[in-house]
Amino acid sequence: MNVSKKAASIVPYTAGEQAEGYIKLNTNENPYPPSPRAAEALRGFDVDKLRLYPSPDSAGLRAAIAKAEGVDADNIFVGNGSDEVLALAFAALFDADEPIEFADVTYSFYPVFARLFDIPYNTVPLNDDFSLPFDKFNFYNGAVIANPNAPTSLSVPVDALRAAAERSRKALIVDEAYIDFADRTESAVRLTSEYDTLAVVKTFSKSYGLAGIRCGYMIAGRKIIDAMRAIKDSFNSYPVDRVCEAVCAAAVSDREYLKDKIQKVKNTRSRVISELRARGVAVFDSDANFIFMEGDKSLYEKFKSQNILVRHFDKPRISDKLRVSVGTDAQMDEFLRVFDKIR
Amino acid sequence: MNVSKKAASIVPYTAGEQAEGYIKLNTNENPYPPSPRAAEALRGFDVDKLRLYPSPDSAGLRAAIAKAEGVDADNIFVGNGSDEVLALAFAALFDADEPIEFADVTYSFYPVFARLFDIPYNTVPLNDDFSLPFDKFNFYNGAVIANPNAPTSLSVPVDALRAAAERSRKALIVDEAYIDFADRTESAVRLTSEYDTLAVVKTFSKSYGLAGIRCGYMIAGRKIIDAMRAIKDSFNSYPVDRVCEAVCAAAVSDREYLKDKIQKVKNTRSRVISELRARGVAVFDSDANFIFMEGDKSLYEKFKSQNILVRHFDKPRISDKLRVSVGTDAQMDEFLRVFDKIR
Repeated sequence: MNVSKKAASIVPYTAGEQAEGYIKLNTNENPYPPSPRAAEALRGFDVDKLRLYPSPDSAGLRAAIAKAEGVDADNIFVGNGSDEVLALAFAALFDADEPIEFADVTYSFYPVFARLFDIPYNTVPLNDDFSLPFDKFNFYNGAVIANPNAPTSLSVPVDALRAAAERSRKALIVDEAYIDFADRTESAVRLTSEYDTLAVVKTFSKSYGLAGIRCGYMIAGRKIIDAMRAIKDSFNSYPVDRVCEAVCAAAVSDREYLKDKIQKVKNTRSRVISELRARGVAVFDSDANFIFMEGDKSLYEKFKSQNILVRHFDKPRISDKLRVSVGTDAQMDEFLRVFDKIR
Repeated sequence: MNVSKKAASIVPYTAGEQAEGYIKLNTNENPYPPSPRAAEALRGFDVDKLRLYPSPDSAGLRAAIAKAEGVDADNIFVGNGSDEVLALAFAALFDADEPIEFADVTYSFYPVFARLFDIPYNTVPLNDDFSLPFDKFNFYNGAVIANPNAPTSLSVPVDALRAAAERSRKALIVDEAYIDFADRTESAVRLTSEYDTLAVVKTFSKSYGLAGIRCGYMIAGRKIIDAMRAIKDSFNSYPVDRVCEAVCAAAVSDREYLKDKIQKVKNTRSRVISELRARGVAVFDSDANFIFMEGDKSLYEKFKSQNILVRHFDKPRISDKLRVSVGTDAQMDEFLRVFDKIR
């Protein structure tokens, strides 16, 4: 066999379709473009600099993130999207000899990362209402919690994460891809200075509207950041390119624009949830830039036939539900109009 | 311990310094900027598109590379620099149960990739003249050959690679980062349609002058490409960002510019090698965009004190040699002037 046993047997993560010509409500992208400062950074970029390798540790971008997050740049690790940051974290923080934990219904990339790096894992079943059963986690050997969780859109209070960190001996990764859209919880970043087992992962793909540039980061104590660097430098010396660094540093500096666009998404989200509930549809409370509603594969297909892409997971417990990204008001009006037609 | 045993024990690859204010001849970057078409692609890029994820399999860029390489797009895998492509290849193509092979003096990232993915390896000693001893390789269980080799700058004929492929049961990776600068050998790409064990890896970092955008690719048979995709999709769904895809697709289309800049580097290389040999300095024949010459750590330090960065490796067999990237004629004149002063 000319390929590895792992490549021949692993079941990769399946990302949402990147089809064109649809109203795309399937991959939780931001319906609004990135900050004008990002556009300016791109237009002003000196292409001749591309002949040189980038900063291996993204020093400029880490400084910009540090300022925005109120932490030290030495407590930040930057990677090629939060997926890469998470993948490297599985290798950097978890071992093959003891199982880590994550929920049974959560970001379905976690079990794939675990298999890639031969990390055993136990999945902890969410409660019937899809809330997180903290008492059923051990937390001792390492865990990954998405907060808010995907695809459920639900969040846990930061105090529960503090209690979990108290019990952790290995790393507790909190994946905050959607945290900027949360009303009922807040970021665990401020806890990372208290708990050296806590690692918070964030992304430029959602609230910053920069999914296409591939950038994510981790905030944690120095020992965890050093481990991330050791694994990164054993994989790819320069995962963040020069354009990406310039664009994201510009975007992260524009707090007003970010706040404004987050609020717009949250306003649209409230309205869509109310409209659906008024129609008798079960929708979860959402702390993310998507909603999780009742709806099966056939509804997904009907939406698709009407040029609207939403996400359906053919998985236990959630195959009767749909995940729908919050688009612009106009896109969601069309979503509701089509829903009324096809339901 | 809050980090993994692997992170605590692995010795990462050390990339060349990215210091500013020096004549940088230490990381084999191109002294010339990328094609004007790359600049145009960057300037014309619609920043609003960055809110959307990129093509997961870099379809547009693969089509552009396919045209330039004269292969089918389905035989191409694209990644975030050839380092990422190589790292993923170790996981996709090699197993933990049998040792792979590479030279004792070659790209020092190979043993690090192997340790990251728990692939055992044997290093095969180069001959005394640093030529590759093909008869001492087994090739049966997988191997990695850099052609031209770094840091030696020497190459092997493509017929030797064909003979090696004949013997391979697992993958034979040919790392052609420097192939565009070779006079004494040629690319093994055309052999990939004959041998389903052969995987050729190339980069945009050297001949294209795009080290700062992070892009590399593999050309191989479908089974190997499928394995690469399976591992990539278990690590990061979208390793190549939208700007990178647009810039590299534009650059790869400009064959005239590429040819011209390669010729300029080769001309400068010939001149510098002649000048050094005229001074009685031992320099290897070079098929790369760098030269490998006698010179120890103290010479490296003297160059640095004169604002010229070259590369010295504190490693067995090569600690009495320096690797010097070929810069512009003006940079190499300064290199020679300083050399005459400090030697």
